[in-house]
Amino acid sequence: MKFCNQCGSPVASRIPEGDDRPRFVCENCEHIHYQNPRVIVGCVPEVDGKILLCKRAIQPRQGYWTLPAGFMENGETSVQGAARETWEEARARVGDQQLYRLFDLPYISQVYMFYRATVVAGEFGVGPESSAVELFAEHEIPWREIAFPVVRDTLKEYFSDRRNDHYPVRVSSITR
Amino acid sequence: MKFCNQCGSPVASRIPEGDDRPRFVCENCEHIHYQNPRVIVGCVPEVDGKILLCKRAIQPRQGYWTLPAGFMENGETSVQGAARETWEEARARVGDQQLYRLFDLPYISQVYMFYRATVVAGEFGVGPESSAVELFAEHEIPWREIAFPVVRDTLKEYFSDRRNDHYPVRVSSITR
Repeated sequence: MKFCNQCGSPVASRIPEGDDRPRFVCENCEHIHYQNPRVIVGCVPEVDGKILLCKRAIQPRQGYWTLPAGFMENGETSVQGAARETWEEARARVGDQQLYRLFDLPYISQVYMFYRATVVAGEFGVGPESSAVELFAEHEIPWREIAFPVVRDTLKEYFSDRRNDHYPVRVSSITR
Repeated sequence: MKFCNQCGSPVASRIPEGDDRPRFVCENCEHIHYQNPRVIVGCVPEVDGKILLCKRAIQPRQGYWTLPAGFMENGETSVQGAARETWEEARARVGDQQLYRLFDLPYISQVYMFYRATVVAGEFGVGPESSAVELFAEHEIPWREIAFPVVRDTLKEYFSDRRNDHYPVRVSSITR
């Protein structure tokens, strides 16, 4: 960030009075620009015991498989955001959403929230950010072609939890 | 937002190519400014069966009681952020943090995350944003002077859950 979004003057990184860390502060109007972590919301969509994965048509990790997920938008709930992303990437409508997994990724200031979900009528398709969308049983998961550690961990835990029919909500952080 | 934070030129609200909602886009350098929900992290700090509440010394809701909580910062985990806020507002160090309660507040684009926690050595004090910090047993909670609905709901559920010694992680949204 180089310029104030309120008046267009240059900003400087300094610790505002009463604060304890540097912020971008406008040298003209004193507006303080706070920057905060972003939330990524997604689903673990299940159809008859299989999980819906999307092959990424875009960078990063193009060509690798992922759970449908993306940045939460202003004005929506995390449940709505996770459903929206599943529609956008996998053309699937979800129901029975239950919070399942949180990850903190402090090195990129992100928080992931995954919901377990069922796919309405088992119907899905291929959204614009995917090159393929397919159902995978546990033994079919392409473990070497999973896009992100948060997806791999979530899938491993999900299959394990399903054997016990018990899905505790876990939180952990991924560091680089 | 009126000006681009990259080049200082005016921004316009329009839907970027391939997107489906208006963003502030720079009319000069085309930089897209995404705005996303912010995360508020906090604790339900317990000492010998009592809960630590802070009387707010600042607006909004000055003079009302709240659980220690505040905006999650870049570079920290939600667990760290909840502990930091508890230190800043109640001068208490926390341990045994367990995710307990999530709220979506879509009308102000916020996500609340509360962790259950114990207070190390039972020690606490009054941070700069608090005018008082006190321990309350369930029957002592000043229900009419609680600052925010998310705090009231979390406390009600906490005391109820404690009777069953079972603390499911709940998600709900608050609408206006």
